[in-house]
Amino acid sequence: MDTSILSALNTVWVLLTAALVFFMQTGFALVEAGFTRTKNTTNILFKNLIDFCIGSIVFWLIGYGLMFGSGNGFIGKIEWFSKVDHGASLGLPNPAFFFFQLVFAATAATIVSGAMAERTKFKAYLMYSLIISSVIYPISGHWVWGGGWLSTMQTPFHDFAGSTVVHSVGGWIALVGAAFLGPRKGKYKNGKANAIPGHSLTLSALGVFILWLGWFGFNPGSTLSLSDPNLVANIFVTTNSAAAAAGIATLITTWLRYGKPTFSMTLNGVLAGLVAITAGCDVVTPGGAIVIGLMAGVLVVFAVEFFDKIVKIDDPVGAISVHGVNGTFGTLMVGFFSHNPDLLGLFYGGNASVLVSQIIGMVTVGGWAILCAFILFFILKNTMGIRVSNKEEEIGIDFFEHGEKAYN
Amino acid sequence: MDTSILSALNTVWVLLTAALVFFMQTGFALVEAGFTRTKNTTNILFKNLIDFCIGSIVFWLIGYGLMFGSGNGFIGKIEWFSKVDHGASLGLPNPAFFFFQLVFAATAATIVSGAMAERTKFKAYLMYSLIISSVIYPISGHWVWGGGWLSTMQTPFHDFAGSTVVHSVGGWIALVGAAFLGPRKGKYKNGKANAIPGHSLTLSALGVFILWLGWFGFNPGSTLSLSDPNLVANIFVTTNSAAAAAGIATLITTWLRYGKPTFSMTLNGVLAGLVAITAGCDVVTPGGAIVIGLMAGVLVVFAVEFFDKIVKIDDPVGAISVHGVNGTFGTLMVGFFSHNPDLLGLFYGGNASVLVSQIIGMVTVGGWAILCAFILFFILKNTMGIRVSNKEEEIGIDFFEHGEKAYN
Amino acid sequence: MDTSILSALNTVWVLLTAALVFFMQTGFALVEAGFTRTKNTTNILFKNLIDFCIGSIVFWLIGYGLMFGSGNGFIGKIEWFSKVDHGASLGLPNPAFFFFQLVFAATAATIVSGAMAERTKFKAYLMYSLIISSVIYPISGHWVWGGGWLSTMQTPFHDFAGSTVVHSVGGWIALVGAAFLGPRKGKYKNGKANAIPGHSLTLSALGVFILWLGWFGFNPGSTLSLSDPNLVANIFVTTNSAAAAAGIATLITTWLRYGKPTFSMTLNGVLAGLVAITAGCDVVTPGGAIVIGLMAGVLVVFAVEFFDKIVKIDDPVGAISVHGVNGTFGTLMVGFFSHNPDLLGLFYGGNASVLVSQIIGMVTVGGWAILCAFILFFILKNTMGIRVSNKEEEIGIDFFEHGEKAYN
Repeated sequence: MDTSILSALNTVWVLLTAALVFFMQTGFALVEAGFTRTKNTTNILFKNLIDFCIGSIVFWLIGYGLMFGSGNGFIGKIEWFSKVDHGASLGLPNPAFFFFQLVFAATAATIVSGAMAERTKFKAYLMYSLIISSVIYPISGHWVWGGGWLSTMQTPFHDFAGSTVVHSVGGWIALVGAAFLGPRKGKYKNGKANAIPGHSLTLSALGVFILWLGWFGFNPGSTLSLSDPNLVANIFVTTNSAAAAAGIATLITTWLRYGKPTFSMTLNGVLAGLVAITAGCDVVTPGGAIVIGLMAGVLVVFAVEFFDKIVKIDDPVGAISVHGVNGTFGTLMVGFFSHNPDLLGLFYGGNASVLVSQIIGMVTVGGWAILCAFILFFILKNTMGIRVSNKEEEIGIDFFEHGEKAYN
Repeated sequence: MDTSILSALNTVWVLLTAALVFFMQTGFALVEAGFTRTKNTTNILFKNLIDFCIGSIVFWLIGYGLMFGSGNGFIGKIEWFSKVDHGASLGLPNPAFFFFQLVFAATAATIVSGAMAERTKFKAYLMYSLIISSVIYPISGHWVWGGGWLSTMQTPFHDFAGSTVVHSVGGWIALVGAAFLGPRKGKYKNGKANAIPGHSLTLSALGVFILWLGWFGFNPGSTLSLSDPNLVANIFVTTNSAAAAAGIATLITTWLRYGKPTFSMTLNGVLAGLVAITAGCDVVTPGGAIVIGLMAGVLVVFAVEFFDKIVKIDDPVGAISVHGVNGTFGTLMVGFFSHNPDLLGLFYGGNASVLVSQIIGMVTVGGWAILCAFILFFILKNTMGIRVSNKEEEIGIDFFEHGEKAYN
Repeated sequence: MDTSILSALNTVWVLLTAALVFFMQTGFALVEAGFTRTKNTTNILFKNLIDFCIGSIVFWLIGYGLMFGSGNGFIGKIEWFSKVDHGASLGLPNPAFFFFQLVFAATAATIVSGAMAERTKFKAYLMYSLIISSVIYPISGHWVWGGGWLSTMQTPFHDFAGSTVVHSVGGWIALVGAAFLGPRKGKYKNGKANAIPGHSLTLSALGVFILWLGWFGFNPGSTLSLSDPNLVANIFVTTNSAAAAAGIATLITTWLRYGKPTFSMTLNGVLAGLVAITAGCDVVTPGGAIVIGLMAGVLVVFAVEFFDKIVKIDDPVGAISVHGVNGTFGTLMVGFFSHNPDLLGLFYGGNASVLVSQIIGMVTVGGWAILCAFILFFILKNTMGIRVSNKEEEIGIDFFEHGEKAYN
């Protein structure tokens, strides 16, 4: 195919799928708003809007260079945006490649706000959101997608659209953040976890529908090219199949375990399936995707219970279980379910090297995220503080920090 | 045009329009939630999410083969997904064709939940939703789109994007289901129909906007190809014109008839226009589309009244009138308004054979849907039961079946 | 590139971006509903739906010819839709070009309803909305985009995607309309402006997210072609960068000025950035876009205060400041920030002719909009009346004009 035609095709493909990924910001905002209380709704929506604003600027200034700039295996060079031209080799204009990467960076940052909802200072939020988009995410992203060391191992780490690079990074930072913050008031009484229902399952459901839609940009768009239409189409099917299977699995699991099919958990089940298929959506079969989805849908129920009841970390929206746990799980599954001849998983007769590479990637990227988050929140806690006052938490962040209630 | 280029173009076209059709699930969920009461909101949203999950799996396993597999004029063969390759002849990867068909199958299934809202057992819903996506829809779909007998008549039945195949099938099943269920408590007192207002016209309006957007995938995407850009563009215009004209017609009709322009009915008017233009969107002129839309916008008002006041079937969202009646109406209109030389309608000097074929298709597909629905609901009613208990209906399904209220 | 390939590429591009622009109707509906009170929610949503319906029909009948028909430098000829074929010269099917222009016309009309919310008669709304879409917008649009006099000046007026043509036209009509109407009851007491908070910042936030998404159709789609993929991609980046920078600037401005970061204003800040970058999104650098966005985000705060407190025009949603003021501001900025060699702005060593042309366009189009709006509202006020009765305003328009509350 003529390169100018392919370039035009790739451009329309990458830009429109990037627009879908941008729309995921809306999905996250609504999921988080729906799962939390009316007194903090302005605040959580504000955070979800402004983290994208901040990310758009700092990823352009700093993050893009760290992630894709020339450099070494560990880190890219902060170079001027226009100099970091990764598009050309992909038959893509540089700004198209940049914009696609930008919306991914913003996704990693926005995941965190959910787990830390209803008790985090706005100022601290702005700060850590800035650091994630400009430094933490780009550096580990460089290892996998920017030509860094995880991509140059003998058997390269395979994370096609970011189960690890995006979701588990977000999830593990969320875990550390929520642990530093401590639980919301009233969450644990006499060592027992109390459910604090969110204010609108309608909003959460709308958010999940939008995220599902956005994932048709997230995963298939990560091909960055239409040179292999069959691959692109197949990723639509694997992505969708995993989400659907996960929803069914969560429905059944909650029905058996709690006596009733639970909607809020099933919403998270669908997201868990989407997160889990993201690493291997390009190398598994639709059947494999269904099996991964089914497992993710069960896993998320037990993961939520584990953090809620055993570890006692208060995660109002389940972000740690959805993104951290299932991002990690999906990354590992590539080692079993990959059907790609160059990267054959154990279930299709491959050897263990694929799984080993997946474990290396999962551990180092996860470790990086946890380490950075620990340092970040430690400094923030001991300088500007990260948690609102008792009174503010009780009366609501909306009134204290913004002077605006969401509903009148 | 080079086939590899056309294949890439068709792929981006079909996948992105399929994503828009997927988004219609969100639209239906919001319309149905908005038109019903808060005590059943979790339940109706849950149904709209999970029917897509179920549809995604069973259409892949069973429905796709029945609809498009090799077989006879009545039914396709259940074959393994990858064997049913209809994409190739269309210059499309098979998974792209499959995914487009999947989101259509899910649309047919999701229509039913609205008419049966606020009183159907969740378990019964899962069961009938599964049967529609895997068996009922695919078989009549095979007749029209899978090479079956309606497509091989001398003058083939013409239903371009599914006024009959998708919408009236959904609408007629909804009719039978709502009749089997009986009306909601309090709907009819002393033989008089009482309005039971839904909880949020905002949600319904958002849903209708999303459905209108999704229809730009539904109708133009049904070309499955970009080989004729003018056709694709024209379908955007006919689809939009019919929707707009219908909205205006309903506005005026309600103003004249009820003394006030009624918003909820106008929302259904827009949908009626969209449903009605779906069969002939490729063969009518923009002017013809406007006339069809105007009639659909009037028709829906009288159809809703007819079912509500005369037949006394309780349809909380108007799905029977929107999808059943207007799907049928739009199918017939092809026989009058088609401007296509190979399929000339009566108003453009064609002979009656087109209209006759449309009537044959409408009657047989409608009959099939009604017959199947009758058997299905008869069995379900006499085995697991289809209606919730009196107490559950009064207090709300959300609490009883899911233990989760939508709003806190 | 082969013309048939380019035509297919342009078609998919223009139609899918037009679909995104259509979705902006949803965004406007939600922003306006969220910023106003529950007693008028049905009414404002109804207006936002029906103005698109009306616009779709009258722009097809009349507006399209006035804007793009052959004619003279001031006005196009009302010709039958199919005769006004501007698509051909762009390698586009005519209906694709028409549909793209239609969704733009509808945007201009829909802006007005926000500023005139909560006190305008429904009938008067229908009338002025019809006039805007069919006459006012198309005529000034002809000057700039239809081959009229502003496009044939020695240094043509440059408004790439409509900061002036669409947004400031809508904004200035809104200004005149709101002035004619007078403020809502209770807005000004003893000369002091009282805030009347809207009923849901959640809806407004969702609306702004959707508008931001839609702008990725509005600006990049205005290339109407994929022949220059780099240009298209760059417009994504400039559009997004301006929106993000504006959000940050408004956040900081409100924090400094009111002591708290204010969410509702930041939502308008993002919109201000989007409006301001629209004129020059194709000719500025990403850095330039950020600077324009930063200024827009500050400007909107002072503009809202100015109209609210000094001029005392009651604009419930801030439409005058967002669309009128920032549309004008963005248009002027082209004269400073344009980096395009053929249209070099003052900051890049160009001469003043570009700025002069921008001022000419801004003044004449703005003057046209204000003049027409004055005549229009003068006539409406003295014939059918434009304002609802006191009692209706107090109890709510939803009940009086539509007989339907939005929430139950």
